Amino acid sequence: MAERLIVVGGDAAGMAAASQARRRRNRDDLSIVAFERGHFTSYSACGIPYWISGVVPDRDQLIARDPVTFRESFDIDIRLRHEVTAIDLERREVIARDLAGGGEVREGFDTLMYAAGAVPVKPAWARTDAAGVFGVQTLDDGAALLDWLEREPRPRRAVVIGGGYIGVEMAEALIQRGLTVDLVEQADQPMSTVDGDMAELVADAMRGIGIHIRTGLTVTGLEERDGRITAVVTAEGPMPADVVVLGLGVRPNTALAESAGLPVGPTGGIRTDRRMRVPGVPGVWAAGDCVETLHRVSGMPVHIALGTHANKQGRVAGINIGGGYATFPGVIGTAVTKVCDLEVGRTGLRERDAETAGFEFVSVVAESTNRAGYYPGARKMAVKLIAERPSGRLLGAQIVGWSEAAKRIDTLAVALWNGMTVDAMTALDLGYAPPYAPVWDPVLIAARKAVDALAGAER
Amino acid sequence: MAERLIVVGGDAAGMAAASQARRRRNRDDLSIVAFERGHFTSYSACGIPYWISGVVPDRDQLIARDPVTFRESFDIDIRLRHEVTAIDLERREVIARDLAGGGEVREGFDTLMYAAGAVPVKPAWARTDAAGVFGVQTLDDGAALLDWLEREPRPRRAVVIGGGYIGVEMAEALIQRGLTVDLVEQADQPMSTVDGDMAELVADAMRGIGIHIRTGLTVTGLEERDGRITAVVTAEGPMPADVVVLGLGVRPNTALAESAGLPVGPTGGIRTDRRMRVPGVPGVWAAGDCVETLHRVSGMPVHIALGTHANKQGRVAGINIGGGYATFPGVIGTAVTKVCDLEVGRTGLRERDAETAGFEFVSVVAESTNRAGYYPGARKMAVKLIAERPSGRLLGAQIVGWSEAAKRIDTLAVALWNGMTVDAMTALDLGYAPPYAPVWDPVLIAARKAVDALAGAER
Repeated sequence: MAERLIVVGGDAAGMAAASQARRRRNRDDLSIVAFERGHFTSYSACGIPYWISGVVPDRDQLIARDPVTFRESFDIDIRLRHEVTAIDLERREVIARDLAGGGEVREGFDTLMYAAGAVPVKPAWARTDAAGVFGVQTLDDGAALLDWLEREPRPRRAVVIGGGYIGVEMAEALIQRGLTVDLVEQADQPMSTVDGDMAELVADAMRGIGIHIRTGLTVTGLEERDGRITAVVTAEGPMPADVVVLGLGVRPNTALAESAGLPVGPTGGIRTDRRMRVPGVPGVWAAGDCVETLHRVSGMPVHIALGTHANKQGRVAGINIGGGYATFPGVIGTAVTKVCDLEVGRTGLRERDAETAGFEFVSVVAESTNRAGYYPGARKMAVKLIAERPSGRLLGAQIVGWSEAAKRIDTLAVALWNGMTVDAMTALDLGYAPPYAPVWDPVLIAARKAVDALAGAER
Repeated sequence: MAERLIVVGGDAAGMAAASQARRRRNRDDLSIVAFERGHFTSYSACGIPYWISGVVPDRDQLIARDPVTFRESFDIDIRLRHEVTAIDLERREVIARDLAGGGEVREGFDTLMYAAGAVPVKPAWARTDAAGVFGVQTLDDGAALLDWLEREPRPRRAVVIGGGYIGVEMAEALIQRGLTVDLVEQADQPMSTVDGDMAELVADAMRGIGIHIRTGLTVTGLEERDGRITAVVTAEGPMPADVVVLGLGVRPNTALAESAGLPVGPTGGIRTDRRMRVPGVPGVWAAGDCVETLHRVSGMPVHIALGTHANKQGRVAGINIGGGYATFPGVIGTAVTKVCDLEVGRTGLRERDAETAGFEFVSVVAESTNRAGYYPGARKMAVKLIAERPSGRLLGAQIVGWSEAAKRIDTLAVALWNGMTVDAMTALDLGYAPPYAPVWDPVLIAARKAVDALAGAER
């Protein structure tokens, strides 16, 4: 009889694992059942802000692979609208509730892939039945928000709570739809994924498109009338709102895993080894937004919910479940986004992370351009480097620029990944042609400036 | 008395060296005299095609730093229109001819920086006094060509000889100016800096904008009438031409150096050590388009004339002359260009280079997109990887894509620089957001495909 793999969660990590396992083992060797509580498999949650803004017109464009593909091409028994409610490690079975048809199913497993994803952070004050309050984690969230935005009376005043990637992207999307937008952030800057000096460049761009930024402001409640949201209550008084978007981030979805006894680390994510096995629990694997992972620079566990990690981790788990060998070596915190035409990239540690991790360091910001200064379309770009002293090892990098900027963070990410020093980086052979870079690439200019700063710091 | 540094050649390498030396040593310690036979210092030869096309309207935009800056800010005695005609290592002096004023000057030196650049390859048949034949190496070349293009009777039929970067860029520039353009290439493909499969994508784009490509065709002469060029003679007959652009590449300008006894390597470039010293010749340094350098992947010397290398090498020499310590660790052959909107990047070895160097390898081409497939503006991108077998070490990479493609070669260049295997590359933490990449970045997709090819090759 075939071995049975059960996958809890049918999004990026779970389906990547299932597909990779299937590539290596056929149905006679491994049967695969995947439970997904939502309506969809493998969709791009990162694309939701662009769907809301109208840049991406159709929801289905966000769906990478539909269940039919998984069933027919991969021979995976994918069961949508089924929520796994219990995992019994002793009896090697899961219990799932059929959210559509009602009733429960029990399925035995030999191998379990836990990929339940993340759940939005939702403080007590945000728990309301009032209409007009939305998360933006799932396609269903997005559909509900779009419906609200298009229904009469049309909302005109939006408040976005939280100034991280999703908050900033949603604020831009709502501006593009013609709403007035306040963005409320508890910290002293939005986009706190980069340091304050770089975040200020982003905040300027946000203000430039009409987003009202309210930093250092704590939300304490929501006001409603006749079942509709009317205002966000803050320490400085109420802010009127016809629609409220919660962008407070996510946390690992581990309730079920913890009940079953799977180990959870200091970040709240499930612990795994390098092969994505759950340590001490034979035959159980975990991957994606529900796990914590190693930050390769700080050496500490982190929880970063991002599709690209989920896909990689799922692939690694699937290769291993399939009888192959693969490891996931951790992350370095690379991320990119944009606010209108302003592009933002980051990798590694911010200054505060470097301090927390105990590093001594210098940091520099080098101003340059994306193209040769004389080439049409040359726009400003700021590259920040954080380098350990006295070693000169790169610890982190940030880029903010107006065009062709964000993905240059990859160059720095690969340098960081390989433990390069800023001194060694000054010699890197990067592509040069006037439409693409000054003769000293912005990355090299920043590396040179960091070398000078290190020399100065040692004097 | 101050030590005397003489710089032969006042472009990128020479002036980078002079500036860096000056940063570390003041005029009382080091006097600096730089001889430049042309009219300009530190200009962007790479920008000439964009000046010819009109994209960059003004010649002076291509001049990075003028002589006044070097004299006043750096205290460098820069002498334009002075051609060094002899170097006497015994007597430690150079002789320079004043091309403008006439006469000769002799200057003694303690330290010599040889940075005489490159000279265009010009076969015997190309030596003509006929008007209408142009190189495009110097600003003077560019000015002469522009003058010819704008003078009556206006040229309408251009033939560009040579299908490398400069030939392809000049062909595009001339199309943009409204000329008909034939591009003649002796090899079986233009843009032979990438492999044939990738070059074919470039050739398609060139044909798409109306460039007539003639490959496998040898030029044997030029025809003229009344002192004007009328045709290019080839093995297949004459090709009518009102203007001929020679894009046959350059070779190191070493005549003077060789007369003085400086050692020249197998590529024809001057040999240097890692600090840019000329070995066996105390007090003499060399950098830029006149030297050969180490290719870090093949381990063999190469001659690559490119402003970015010249600047880096000059900087290294100048730091060392200034009493500091720096090394130039070699190159990996990274280059980028574009043909209209098609972007081309390359790094490391092509297939033929890998064969020449004796490597066994697999190569793969992965098709992907620059953005998430659903994000507006997503365009096709092909990433080629060449990986050693069985080790999996990356040996080379090429990218051809329609938008936001070329500079992604830097990601691969840094991976190659650090000796990464394609297997390790599949785990790289690269920036992901829908406007910038699919959830599997094109670089990662290619790495995965290379891993599969390696596994297949070992079966």
